[in-house]
Amino acid sequence: MSGKLNWRINNIANGTSSVLVPEPQRLVLRACTAIRRLLRGTALFVATAWGMGVAEPKKLIHGLKVGMALSLVSLFYYMRPLYEGVGGNAMWSIMTVVVVFEYTVGATLSKSVNRTTGTFLAGSLGVGVHWVASQSGDHLEPIVIGISVFLLASATTFSRFIPTVKTRFDYGALIFILTFSLVSVSGYRVDKLIDMARQRVSTILIGTSLCFITSMLICPIWAGDELHNLTHRNIDKLASSLEGCIADYFKGDSCDDNSKRDSSKEIQAYKCVLNSKPTEESMANFARWEPAHGHFSFRHPWKGYLKIGSLIRNCAYCIHTMTNCTNSEMQAPEFLKRQLQKPCMELCSRTSRLLKELAIMMKTMTRSSKLDFCLQEMNFAAQELQDALRSLPIKPEPMLRPAEDINHEKPETMAASHGPPLLEVLPLVTLVSLLIETAARIEDLIGGVVELSETAAFKAPKLEKKPNQNQASKHHTIEIQYDTVKAPPRA
Amino acid sequence: MSGKLNWRINNIANGTSSVLVPEPQRLVLRACTAIRRLLRGTALFVATAWGMGVAEPKKLIHGLKVGMALSLVSLFYYMRPLYEGVGGNAMWSIMTVVVVFEYTVGATLSKSVNRTTGTFLAGSLGVGVHWVASQSGDHLEPIVIGISVFLLASATTFSRFIPTVKTRFDYGALIFILTFSLVSVSGYRVDKLIDMARQRVSTILIGTSLCFITSMLICPIWAGDELHNLTHRNIDKLASSLEGCIADYFKGDSCDDNSKRDSSKEIQAYKCVLNSKPTEESMANFARWEPAHGHFSFRHPWKGYLKIGSLIRNCAYCIHTMTNCTNSEMQAPEFLKRQLQKPCMELCSRTSRLLKELAIMMKTMTRSSKLDFCLQEMNFAAQELQDALRSLPIKPEPMLRPAEDINHEKPETMAASHGPPLLEVLPLVTLVSLLIETAARIEDLIGGVVELSETAAFKAPKLEKKPNQNQASKHHTIEIQYDTVKAPPRA
Repeated sequence: MSGKLNWRINNIANGTSSVLVPEPQRLVLRACTAIRRLLRGTALFVATAWGMGVAEPKKLIHGLKVGMALSLVSLFYYMRPLYEGVGGNAMWSIMTVVVVFEYTVGATLSKSVNRTTGTFLAGSLGVGVHWVASQSGDHLEPIVIGISVFLLASATTFSRFIPTVKTRFDYGALIFILTFSLVSVSGYRVDKLIDMARQRVSTILIGTSLCFITSMLICPIWAGDELHNLTHRNIDKLASSLEGCIADYFKGDSCDDNSKRDSSKEIQAYKCVLNSKPTEESMANFARWEPAHGHFSFRHPWKGYLKIGSLIRNCAYCIHTMTNCTNSEMQAPEFLKRQLQKPCMELCSRTSRLLKELAIMMKTMTRSSKLDFCLQEMNFAAQELQDALRSLPIKPEPMLRPAEDINHEKPETMAASHGPPLLEVLPLVTLVSLLIETAARIEDLIGGVVELSETAAFKAPKLEKKPNQNQASKHHTIEIQYDTVKAPPRA
Repeated sequence: MSGKLNWRINNIANGTSSVLVPEPQRLVLRACTAIRRLLRGTALFVATAWGMGVAEPKKLIHGLKVGMALSLVSLFYYMRPLYEGVGGNAMWSIMTVVVVFEYTVGATLSKSVNRTTGTFLAGSLGVGVHWVASQSGDHLEPIVIGISVFLLASATTFSRFIPTVKTRFDYGALIFILTFSLVSVSGYRVDKLIDMARQRVSTILIGTSLCFITSMLICPIWAGDELHNLTHRNIDKLASSLEGCIADYFKGDSCDDNSKRDSSKEIQAYKCVLNSKPTEESMANFARWEPAHGHFSFRHPWKGYLKIGSLIRNCAYCIHTMTNCTNSEMQAPEFLKRQLQKPCMELCSRTSRLLKELAIMMKTMTRSSKLDFCLQEMNFAAQELQDALRSLPIKPEPMLRPAEDINHEKPETMAASHGPPLLEVLPLVTLVSLLIETAARIEDLIGGVVELSETAAFKAPKLEKKPNQNQASKHHTIEIQYDTVKAPPRA
């Protein structure tokens, strides 16, 4: 039609044919594809960044803060090129700001202190070694320097693997090696070295103080706050996962696809709890450096949060196993599920109420007046579930070993076979058992939170106002009533 | 006796008295305590370091390698102070070695490429911005520079939070910000800048190539190897935890304290599997940068290892829940435990044999001829355990709800009450159910390993030699025999 000659490849095997495109056109096509892919990638990147900026404006603010600190220090040195421009000491201020300014105040402080201490220690040691080397004659000088650099760099690098050093002084060790090598290798005389060191330390101090000010005064992001929020949010997530999981199991196929998708999202909430350990540890490590802020004193017991975190994960592992039971292929008979539904849902709702109470207690750092009551309610519900389990009509199959004894009791076995076999109810029984186990682990979690509430001196609960007094007294009555209910033994 | 006057404080409340030590003596005492504490701390630190060096000599070797690379580059510049000593470009070589030299080859390569690319990109952009600023007049110049530093630093810092950038280009982004600020702030003319940039890039290249050579030629530590070893060791740990947990449960109190301590150590092995995710991810990320080495090609499917890692953790969560069941306060009656002991131990030993086979398959990167057989054996054992569970004499308690129906069947209920109530066997039943669940999850793990064996082109299994032929044919017969055994439905 277009008057052009086309080469066509006929594929005989499947009867299709394709046009053979000449080489230059193919290159253009490829370039177009590449550009399109690049554009799509860029669009995706921008969309991700936009989404993150909207979801977590703190990260955007951090970016702006770094930009501000950096342009301030840059302009300061641009306006008054004190020494010899970039080659000189101005560089160290800029470098300090870039390297030291971290997301949280604690991390910034930790890196600053590490950098300053590392530089100071290595500088002093370097000057000493430099002096020794210069006294030992022209031939020995490079040998002394080479050996000392080798030994100190090896030992310090190795020490960075030791857990205590790794968590707290990793950056300091790096700076130590760097500064020591630079100082001991420098060809300067000792008096000039000391002069240079003085200038360098002062520029580093300018950089770090600018970082301190920007990071602490403009929308500060405290590692302690992050850890605190992470912890109570994780408890909340446990509650919603647990509720979602049990509701999903007993609701079964009755609900529509939309609500199923919602509930599966809810159930998955616990998954980010499973891997929160590294974040918690680094946050707790940085939080120790932070000055008193908000509700937190300088020596706030951050280690308590780590303990609570591990107890939360302990519950999350149990919930993880439970979600697998609800997805089991083998389903218990409907009437049995209906029989256990009420006590299960009851225990689940009590447990999640308790978890929410714990989350509020952590969030507001206030001791809860309802905690004991909630715990007793949960234990009572656990007891009721165990009672319900006891009343399950399980089919008693004949004991296979002593078969003779059973044979003459045939009528009994026949009569009881109305019940489903144990194997069929296994997922249901396991689910119930794990639910009870989760409740037991949550009791441990309560222990951790109560311990923290003592060491961190949580506020006393607010007294309820007069209009609520009736309700309070009602609660009290119930409390007394339940007081006789003992916690069931752990299944 | 000594003729000295002592002040003594008498505590009337509990009838004790203590000698009041004068101020200077107290200071000395305090100093002594502090020194003793410091010495004890140092001794502990040295002991830890020594223990680590003996247990993981690789880390010691890494330290020595860094020391060597650093003293080499230091001496190189010390011997020929090309420019102006430490202030000049020599510094950049030393700094590069200190900052870029990481534990694994992959991490070193990744950091080197990041540093070089970041420096190059930011340098070019910085020269451009510098030129634009210098063209815009003396008044506008600082404004243009300030705004460009602010915008680029903010955007790049923010982009470091985006997952892709964070895992792969975090260090590059840092270097980008640093270099851009340094270049655009510098007061030099553009032609001098380009000259300086050329020198700086060349010194950085000297540093990175020295790092490459030292890290790859002297006892290289490959991230790929580390990931590979971590994976098959984790599978082995699963096997020993599982075995230890089941053996511990059924052995009960019969064994002595020593063997208990050993077995509890064995059971805890799975715990380090729970938190291996971050290590695996960073190793997989670094392994992508590594050239072909050992059994691994350049494009080895490292992502497969991540998938296997998550499947291993899935099993570990299950085992974690299981260990809690074995520690339950409520114990099933001894005769029931004895009845289930054999099939449980059987399934456990089959499962751990399968896991060990998987670990060997991963370790040697060779397809296993026994895998199918082991899997069938495991499924057969699971089936047998379910059969044994079916024959458990559980006490059928009367249904509480329709109480009227039950009352006239009293004799039956009485007769069947020889069996223990369901509640009492709950931990045992849960343990069995979780054991079966673990077996099901291990089947998923097999799927992951088989998938990797295909994408990573594992070697074909070695044919067995003639003396073993008899055994092989015996295996084959059993295989056919078991071929009819279907995998039991997941409990």
